[in-house]
Amino acid sequence: MNIGIIGTGGIATSAHIPQYIAAGANVVAVMNRTRERGEAAARQFGIERVYGTVEAMLENETLDAVSVCTPNALHKEQVIAALAAGCHVLCEKPPAISAREAMEMLEAAKAANRTLHYGFHYRHRSDTQLLKRMIEAGELGHLYAATALALRRRGIPGWGVFTDKELQGGGALLDHGVHMLDLALYLMGYPKPVDVIGHIGQYLGTRPGVGLMGTWDPDTFSVEDTARAMVKFENGASLLFDGSFMANVGPRDTMRVELRGTEGGATLFPLHVHTEAYGALFDQTPAHLEHVDPYAVQIQTFLDACQREPEFEQGEQAVILHTITDRIYGEA
Amino acid sequence: MNIGIIGTGGIATSAHIPQYIAAGANVVAVMNRTRERGEAAARQFGIERVYGTVEAMLENETLDAVSVCTPNALHKEQVIAALAAGCHVLCEKPPAISAREAMEMLEAAKAANRTLHYGFHYRHRSDTQLLKRMIEAGELGHLYAATALALRRRGIPGWGVFTDKELQGGGALLDHGVHMLDLALYLMGYPKPVDVIGHIGQYLGTRPGVGLMGTWDPDTFSVEDTARAMVKFENGASLLFDGSFMANVGPRDTMRVELRGTEGGATLFPLHVHTEAYGALFDQTPAHLEHVDPYAVQIQTFLDACQREPEFEQGEQAVILHTITDRIYGEA
Amino acid sequence: MNIGIIGTGGIATSAHIPQYIAAGANVVAVMNRTRERGEAAARQFGIERVYGTVEAMLENETLDAVSVCTPNALHKEQVIAALAAGCHVLCEKPPAISAREAMEMLEAAKAANRTLHYGFHYRHRSDTQLLKRMIEAGELGHLYAATALALRRRGIPGWGVFTDKELQGGGALLDHGVHMLDLALYLMGYPKPVDVIGHIGQYLGTRPGVGLMGTWDPDTFSVEDTARAMVKFENGASLLFDGSFMANVGPRDTMRVELRGTEGGATLFPLHVHTEAYGALFDQTPAHLEHVDPYAVQIQTFLDACQREPEFEQGEQAVILHTITDRIYGEA
Amino acid sequence: MNIGIIGTGGIATSAHIPQYIAAGANVVAVMNRTRERGEAAARQFGIERVYGTVEAMLENETLDAVSVCTPNALHKEQVIAALAAGCHVLCEKPPAISAREAMEMLEAAKAANRTLHYGFHYRHRSDTQLLKRMIEAGELGHLYAATALALRRRGIPGWGVFTDKELQGGGALLDHGVHMLDLALYLMGYPKPVDVIGHIGQYLGTRPGVGLMGTWDPDTFSVEDTARAMVKFENGASLLFDGSFMANVGPRDTMRVELRGTEGGATLFPLHVHTEAYGALFDQTPAHLEHVDPYAVQIQTFLDACQREPEFEQGEQAVILHTITDRIYGEA
Amino acid sequence: MNIGIIGTGGIATSAHIPQYIAAGANVVAVMNRTRERGEAAARQFGIERVYGTVEAMLENETLDAVSVCTPNALHKEQVIAALAAGCHVLCEKPPAISAREAMEMLEAAKAANRTLHYGFHYRHRSDTQLLKRMIEAGELGHLYAATALALRRRGIPGWGVFTDKELQGGGALLDHGVHMLDLALYLMGYPKPVDVIGHIGQYLGTRPGVGLMGTWDPDTFSVEDTARAMVKFENGASLLFDGSFMANVGPRDTMRVELRGTEGGATLFPLHVHTEAYGALFDQTPAHLEHVDPYAVQIQTFLDACQREPEFEQGEQAVILHTITDRIYGEA
Amino acid sequence: MNIGIIGTGGIATSAHIPQYIAAGANVVAVMNRTRERGEAAARQFGIERVYGTVEAMLENETLDAVSVCTPNALHKEQVIAALAAGCHVLCEKPPAISAREAMEMLEAAKAANRTLHYGFHYRHRSDTQLLKRMIEAGELGHLYAATALALRRRGIPGWGVFTDKELQGGGALLDHGVHMLDLALYLMGYPKPVDVIGHIGQYLGTRPGVGLMGTWDPDTFSVEDTARAMVKFENGASLLFDGSFMANVGPRDTMRVELRGTEGGATLFPLHVHTEAYGALFDQTPAHLEHVDPYAVQIQTFLDACQREPEFEQGEQAVILHTITDRIYGEA
Repeated sequence: MNIGIIGTGGIATSAHIPQYIAAGANVVAVMNRTRERGEAAARQFGIERVYGTVEAMLENETLDAVSVCTPNALHKEQVIAALAAGCHVLCEKPPAISAREAMEMLEAAKAANRTLHYGFHYRHRSDTQLLKRMIEAGELGHLYAATALALRRRGIPGWGVFTDKELQGGGALLDHGVHMLDLALYLMGYPKPVDVIGHIGQYLGTRPGVGLMGTWDPDTFSVEDTARAMVKFENGASLLFDGSFMANVGPRDTMRVELRGTEGGATLFPLHVHTEAYGALFDQTPAHLEHVDPYAVQIQTFLDACQREPEFEQGEQAVILHTITDRIYGEA
Repeated sequence: MNIGIIGTGGIATSAHIPQYIAAGANVVAVMNRTRERGEAAARQFGIERVYGTVEAMLENETLDAVSVCTPNALHKEQVIAALAAGCHVLCEKPPAISAREAMEMLEAAKAANRTLHYGFHYRHRSDTQLLKRMIEAGELGHLYAATALALRRRGIPGWGVFTDKELQGGGALLDHGVHMLDLALYLMGYPKPVDVIGHIGQYLGTRPGVGLMGTWDPDTFSVEDTARAMVKFENGASLLFDGSFMANVGPRDTMRVELRGTEGGATLFPLHVHTEAYGALFDQTPAHLEHVDPYAVQIQTFLDACQREPEFEQGEQAVILHTITDRIYGEA
Repeated sequence: MNIGIIGTGGIATSAHIPQYIAAGANVVAVMNRTRERGEAAARQFGIERVYGTVEAMLENETLDAVSVCTPNALHKEQVIAALAAGCHVLCEKPPAISAREAMEMLEAAKAANRTLHYGFHYRHRSDTQLLKRMIEAGELGHLYAATALALRRRGIPGWGVFTDKELQGGGALLDHGVHMLDLALYLMGYPKPVDVIGHIGQYLGTRPGVGLMGTWDPDTFSVEDTARAMVKFENGASLLFDGSFMANVGPRDTMRVELRGTEGGATLFPLHVHTEAYGALFDQTPAHLEHVDPYAVQIQTFLDACQREPEFEQGEQAVILHTITDRIYGEA
Repeated sequence: MNIGIIGTGGIATSAHIPQYIAAGANVVAVMNRTRERGEAAARQFGIERVYGTVEAMLENETLDAVSVCTPNALHKEQVIAALAAGCHVLCEKPPAISAREAMEMLEAAKAANRTLHYGFHYRHRSDTQLLKRMIEAGELGHLYAATALALRRRGIPGWGVFTDKELQGGGALLDHGVHMLDLALYLMGYPKPVDVIGHIGQYLGTRPGVGLMGTWDPDTFSVEDTARAMVKFENGASLLFDGSFMANVGPRDTMRVELRGTEGGATLFPLHVHTEAYGALFDQTPAHLEHVDPYAVQIQTFLDACQREPEFEQGEQAVILHTITDRIYGEA
Repeated sequence: MNIGIIGTGGIATSAHIPQYIAAGANVVAVMNRTRERGEAAARQFGIERVYGTVEAMLENETLDAVSVCTPNALHKEQVIAALAAGCHVLCEKPPAISAREAMEMLEAAKAANRTLHYGFHYRHRSDTQLLKRMIEAGELGHLYAATALALRRRGIPGWGVFTDKELQGGGALLDHGVHMLDLALYLMGYPKPVDVIGHIGQYLGTRPGVGLMGTWDPDTFSVEDTARAMVKFENGASLLFDGSFMANVGPRDTMRVELRGTEGGATLFPLHVHTEAYGALFDQTPAHLEHVDPYAVQIQTFLDACQREPEFEQGEQAVILHTITDRIYGEA
Repeated sequence: MNIGIIGTGGIATSAHIPQYIAAGANVVAVMNRTRERGEAAARQFGIERVYGTVEAMLENETLDAVSVCTPNALHKEQVIAALAAGCHVLCEKPPAISAREAMEMLEAAKAANRTLHYGFHYRHRSDTQLLKRMIEAGELGHLYAATALALRRRGIPGWGVFTDKELQGGGALLDHGVHMLDLALYLMGYPKPVDVIGHIGQYLGTRPGVGLMGTWDPDTFSVEDTARAMVKFENGASLLFDGSFMANVGPRDTMRVELRGTEGGATLFPLHVHTEAYGALFDQTPAHLEHVDPYAVQIQTFLDACQREPEFEQGEQAVILHTITDRIYGEA
C-alpha cells in the first residue's frame, strides 16, 4: 500500500512513519508547509517525495491511505481532502475541534466510502484490550459509573503549538484529557450523552513556574490548564472527568479510567478488576501481560481495516466525543 | 451546664453522652420514643431522667443545651422545638433532609438567639484543622477545584435505619457522602453554588451480596447506593463528588477530599500538601500529628460556643449544603 | 444436646468446651485421668460432673455426643467406647496412630450408626472453604499436583506430651504436618494413594538449642523432627510433603498447601488463585475475606451433623490418611 | 588451544563461542548438519572452517577441545567421537538422555584419558560458589533434606526442538528441571540414590494457551510439562523435586534449591543462610556479591582443566544424575 | 531479701518495685520526701512502711539492698548513705552528675564492701546481650570506631524535673544521651578516654513549640537541648556522640549505637552485623530474638550479684563515664 | 575560549573535556607526563596538541583557562604556574594537601587576578542548590549542628594512585570524605573553625579482602582507611565527620550531610527538610527535582566566571578546608 503523511511533527516521525515501515507499507510521500522539515523527515526515513501542500501531494501521488499529523485545527480540511481523493485516513487525536467538524469528516468518509480512523493509541494497549474483552463478555455487567482522570502537575508541553488555542482548539481537555475521556467512552460502548456541565479555566499556565515537560511561554499561553466535567448518559450512567496541564497535585501524574458496573469494577492503569464471586470479594490483576507498542497495533489495525469494508464507527464516536467537549467548552 | 439528649442510638451513646461527661457537663435527661432504650442508656451513664417525647423533656427540664441524635427526617422538628425552648442545639449530621428544612432550622435559631451546631466530626480531626489553618494563611491560594470521594465497596450498614429512605432521606449521598461533601465545602469556605448536576441510583443494594458492615435487607433497601455530582460555584470553582454505599471498587474504601489552589494543593486523608517554592516542587507531610478524638473536640467546641454570642454560621452552611443535595436528588 | 468431654488438656479448654457453650450445647461432664485437672476444667466452665475414666462417664451420663481431646494413642479405644455408648464423636486430630486403628474406629461408627468427625480445624477457615467452593465449581479443573508444607524453625512444643513417641505416635508428621497433609487431601477430594515413599528422621530435636515454643527436653525427645514424603494417587496426581518440628529454615515458619490443576492453581495461606482467561494470566486474591474462628465452625458443623443421618466420610478419609502416614513411617 | 564447536544453536553462539574467544582460545572450526547455519555462525565470529559432520571435523582438524551444543539425544555419540579423537570435551546439559549413555561417555573419557565437563552453568554463579565454600567448611553440617524447584508458569520454549521427546529426551525434567536437580546434588556432594519415585505428566502443553517464552505447537508437544519426584539417598538424606514447563502457579517463576543441614540451612536464589549461634537464630545474606557471567567461568574452568590431569568427576556425577532421571521416567 | 526504695517517681513504680516483687524479693519500705507520694506507692504495691528521709529508713529498717530512684543530683549522698548502712545499691542512671561524685560513690562501695549497680537498662536488652557475646567471642575484632546517637525531634519531657539543671545536672547529654553513650562504652569494654571535645547548647528548648512528650515550660528550661562530642581513647579508638532533647530532625527519633571493628561491624537497634567471610560480605540479622523486659533482667542481675562477692566494675565504669561527661560540659 | 587540560586521567576524560566541548569551549591542548596517555586523550576528543610538561604547554599555547586533573600533590605547583601564565584555573578536588599550599594558590590567584575554582561537584547537584537557596532564604535559621558522612564498606579504588600517600596526601579524608566535609561547610557558609580533633587510622586497607571498587594492593596501601573528626566553629556550631575507604558497615555506602538549624533541619542525599509550622511538624521532600549533570554545571559555572571579575571565594574556602584537614591529620 502507498501511504502519504500529512504533517511531519513529533507523532509522525516517532510513531506513524516508522510503524508503517515496520508493517511493510510503502510511505511514498510526506507533506509539510515548512519545506525543510518535510525534507528532514523524508531524509530520515528514505521517503522519496516531499510536498508543501496537501493539494499538491494528493494531486501528484496515487495514495491508498494517509496519516494526518498536523495541529488539531487543520484536521478537518486535510482529512476531507484526503478522503475526497480516495484515501483511507488515519487522523491523529483529537479528531477535530468541534462536533460540527467531526460530523463533516464523518460525512466525507461515508461519501467517499473510505475508512476513517482516529489515533487514540491508549485504546491499543494490551491492558485496555484485555479489559475490553472482559467487558464484552459481561464480566462487569452494566457500566453505570465512570471516572476519567488526566492530571499533570507541571506538564505544559514546552515544544510544538500545544499552548496555542487557535491551532489546537484547547489544552487540558481537548489535547490531553481527551485521551482518558475517549478511553472511558470506548470501554462504556460510547453511550449517548444527555447532560453535560463543565469547568474550563486558566490558573497556573499564564504565569512562570517549574516546567517538567520543557519551558513554555506563559505570555502566549491561550489554552485552558484546567478542565473538569460531569456527563450523564441516556442509559443512566454518568462520567466524571478531571484534567489538567498544570496543577498542584501529587505525588505522581495521573492517567486513569475507573469503571463501576453491576457485576464488577475495573481500573486502568494498571488494570485491576474487582468482583464478587463464591460469596467473597476478589481483586484480580493480570500477571505477565504482554507488552505491545500501542502505535504499532494502531497502524496495523488501520492497515487491516483498509483491506476490508470501510469503517465509520470511529467517525461516529468522534461526533459524540466532540458533542461532549463542545458542551464542556460551552460552545454548543 | 445541663444537657438533654434526644435519641439514644449509636452516636449518642458512643460519642455525645460520654464526651459531655468527659467535658464536665451535666447530662440530666435522655429522650427515646422506645422507653426501654432510653432507660438502658440512662442506666449505662447514670443519667437521672428518661422521657418518651421531646415535648415532655423540654417541659420538665431546665436545659442549657441538647444534642439531637435521631434519624435525619426527625431533625427539623426536634431541633426547632429545642431552640424554641431556649436550648443551644448540637444536631447530628446531615442537618436535615432538604434546604427548606435547614432554612427553617436556621431561622428558628436566629429567632431564639441560640447557637446551632451540626455534627460533622471530620471537621474536628487534627489533620483537617491543620489544613484549615494553612488555607486561611493563604498557603493554597484561591481554591478552584475540589473532589470529594466517599466510596464503600460493601458498606451498607446492617443496623439502624440507614436503608430507609423515609426516615433517613437518602443513603450514599445524604448519610454517608455528606461527610466528605461538607468537608470540601468547609475547607473551600462554603462558596455559593450556581450549577449542579447529579446522578442517583440503586444498582447493588437491592440484591443480596457480601456485607462488610453487617447484613442488610435488600428487599427494603429504599435509599440510593450510588450518588455522583458536579457543582459549580459563583467564585468560578467546581467540585466533583462520588459516593457509594456499595460498589465494585477496591482495594480499600475511600474517604477523601482533594483541593487544588493557585498556590498549592492538598489531599485528606492523610494530609499531603503539594507546592512550588524555590524553583522546585515540594511534597509536604505532617510528621507526628497529634491524635485527637474528633467527637471530644466537637462537644468541647459546642460547649465553648454556648458560652459566647450565638453562632449561626453552621446553620447557614447547612442551607447551602442542602441546596446542593436537593439538586443532586433532583428535588429542587 | 448433652455433651461429654474426654481429656481436658489444651485444645479442650481453649476450643471445644467454650465453643460448645457458645453454640448453646450442654456440656454436662468432663473426664480426666488426673482428677484435679478434670475438676479445674469443670470449675472454669461450670460443668457439673467430673470423671476419672471414660467408662465411668459413659455409664453414668446420658450423652448425645462427646469430644475426645486426649493424646493420640488413646483416641481409638476412647472413640470406640463412646460410639458403642451411642454417642456421636468429635475426635481431635490426628484420628489415630495407624490405619488399622482408623479402620476400627470407622467400623465402630458404622456399627453404632453414629457420626464420627475429626478435628482438622484448618478445613474450617474461611479461605479454605472459599477455595473448596471454587474447586467444586471446577475453577481449577483436574488437580494433578499438590504440595503440603508444615515447617517450623524451632517449634518443638515445650508443653504436653508432644515429644513422646509412645503417647503421640509421631511428631513432625503425625502431630504437626498432618494438618497440611489432610488439608491437601481434603481439597483434592481424598484420592486413593497407590505409591508412597517417606523420610523420617531426628536431627535437631535430640540436642539442646533455641526453643521458640517453650523449652523441651532433648533427652526424652522420641518423635521425629523431620518428615518428608511423596505420594502418588490412583487418579494420576501426586503430592509432595515436607514437615519439621525444628529445622534450619527461614525467615518465617511455613504452613502451606499448593495445588495445581488443569484450569487453575491455588495457594493457601493466604489464598491466591492463578488462572488463564481472556488470553491473559490472572492472579486473584480475595479482598476483605470474613474472619471466622475455625473451632467455632468445627463445633457447629459437628452439632449440625448430629441432627442428621450419621456421617462416615471423615472416618473413611482417616483410613486413607493413616494409610499414607503408616507408609511414610514404614510401618505398612 | 584449538577449539571445535559441535552444533551452532542458541547456547553455542550466545555463550560457548564468545566465551572461548574472550578467554583467548582459538575457535578454529564449527560443525552443523545444516550447512548455512554453520556458515552463519562462522561468519559472525570469524571462524575459519565449517563442517557438516562431526567425523569430517575431527578428521580434518587438530583440536585440543570441543564443545558439544546439539540436541540432547545426539550428545552421547558426538562426545564419544570427540574423546576418541583425543579432544577434551565440554558437553551442554543434560549430559545424556539415560544413565546408560552417561556411563558410556564416562568410560570413553577414561579410555581416552581426556577431561569431560558438562555445562551446568548454575554451578558457576558466584552465590552458588559461595554456598559451596560454606558447605565445604562445615557451616551447614550434615545435609539431610533438599528441595529442588524449577517451576515455570507459561514457559514452554517457542523455539528450537525443546518440545520434541525424541530429540530432547524430556522437557520439564530432563531439559529444564535438571538444572536445579544437578545443583542440589552438587551442593550435597552427589550422594548415592537408593530410592526414587516420580510423576511425569502432560497437562497443559498439549492444548493452546498463553506463551511467555514464545509460541509453541501444542499438536507436536511430546515431552512432559510436569515432573515431580522424591529421592532417598544412602546417607539418609532425601530430595524433593518439582518441575514444570507450564503450570498454574504464580506470581513469579521459581528456580530454587533449599538445603537443610544439622548446623545450618540455605536457600538459593538469592542466597539466604539460616543458623543458630550465640544462643540466637541468624539470617545471613551476602551483601554486594560480585556478579560474574556463569558461562565465562564455565569456559575458563574447562580450559583450565584441559591443562591438568584429566577429570572424570563430572562424568561420574552424570551417571548418578541420569540414574535418578531414568527412574523418574520409569525407564529403569 | 529485704529491699528499700529511695524515691517513688516514675521508674520506681513502673519498673523497680514491680520487678523486685516479680523476682520474689521483699520490698519492705519506701522513702519519699513528699509523704503522700510515698504512701501512694506503698498502697499501690502493698508495702508496709513509708519514710520521709533516707536516714529514717536506713535507721529503722534492716535492708539487704536499696534502689535509688531520685533526681540525679541526689544520687551521690543517698547511695553513700545506703552503702554505709550495709546495703547493696542499685542506683538509677546517670550514676551521678560528675566524675568526682562517681568516684566518691565507688570508694564508698569499696569501703562498705557492697555491690553498686547502675540502672542502664539498655544493656539488658536481648539484642544488646547477643552483641556483647559476639564481641567477647571476637566476632568484631578490635573495635576502633563507635558512634552513639540519641536524637529526639520534640522530646523534652513534660513531666518530672528533667528540665531543671540543678536537680538533674543536664538534659540531652546527662539524662538522655547517656543511655547510648554508656551502651557504646560498655560494648567497647569501657576503654580509657584520652581526649574529648564537646558542644553543649540551648537552641529550641527555651522557646515554645510542639511537644511530643508532653508540654514543658520554656521559661524554666535550664538544661542543654543539644549535646555533641568526640572522644578519643587510649587504645586508639574514637567515639562520636550526638544527642538532643529537641531538634529539627526526622522522620523518626534515633537511639542508635554503631561499632566498627577490624573483623566486623554492628548496629543497634535493631541488631545488624556486617562481616566478611568466605570471600564475601555478609549482613546478619538475628531472627526471632527472644523479647525480654530489660528492667526484669536488670533487677534479677542485681539480686543475683547481691548473693556473690561485691562488684565494683559498674562503679569504676561510672567514673570513666562521668570523666567524659564532665569534659563535654567543660567542667573538668 | 581556549582551554588547556593538565592531566588526562579519569576525571579529565569522563567529565572536564567532554563538558568543555558540550559547552562550546575550545579545548586546544592536553598535557600528560606519559606522552601516550596524553595522545590517547587527544585522539579520543580530537584535540590538536599534546604536551609532556606544564611549562611547555603554557609557553606554546595562548590559553584562557586550564583544568588541573592531576594527583593532589601536584596541584599547587601546576595551578600556580597556570595562574602565573594568565589562565583562569579550575582545579580538581581536594584543592591541595595542606592549608599552606592552599594559601599559596589563593595568593597566586590574587596576584594574577584570575579566577580559581575547585572541582567539588556535589555542590552543583540540583538538590544541593535547592537546599542552598532555602538556607539563604532563612528556612533553617541559624545552623548550629552538622554531620558529614562518607562511608564506604569496601571502596578502596583499584585504579589510579588513590592509595599512595605521597601523591594523594590522604585517602578516606583528603580524597573521599573531603566531598562531604566541603559540602557541609559550603552549606553552613564556611564558618571559621576554632577547635578540631581527629582520628586517622589504617585498619583494613593493609590486608587483603573483598574489593568493590577493583583490586588494590594492600602492601603499598599508605593512606588512611579511616578518618573521623569533630570541629567547633567560632559561631558556636559544630560538625561531626566520619569517613572510610573500607569499613565493616552496611547495608549500603553512605554519602550524607545532615544540618540542624533553629528553624529547620535538612538531610542530603536525598533532600529531606524538617520544620515546624502551623503548630505541626512537617517533613518536606522535593518532588520531580530536575536532574542535572553536576559536572556540566561546574564547567559552565567556571566558564561564566571567567567572563566576570575574578573570584577568590573558593580559594579562601580552600584555606579553611585544609586548615581543618591539617588538624585532623595532626600536621598543624
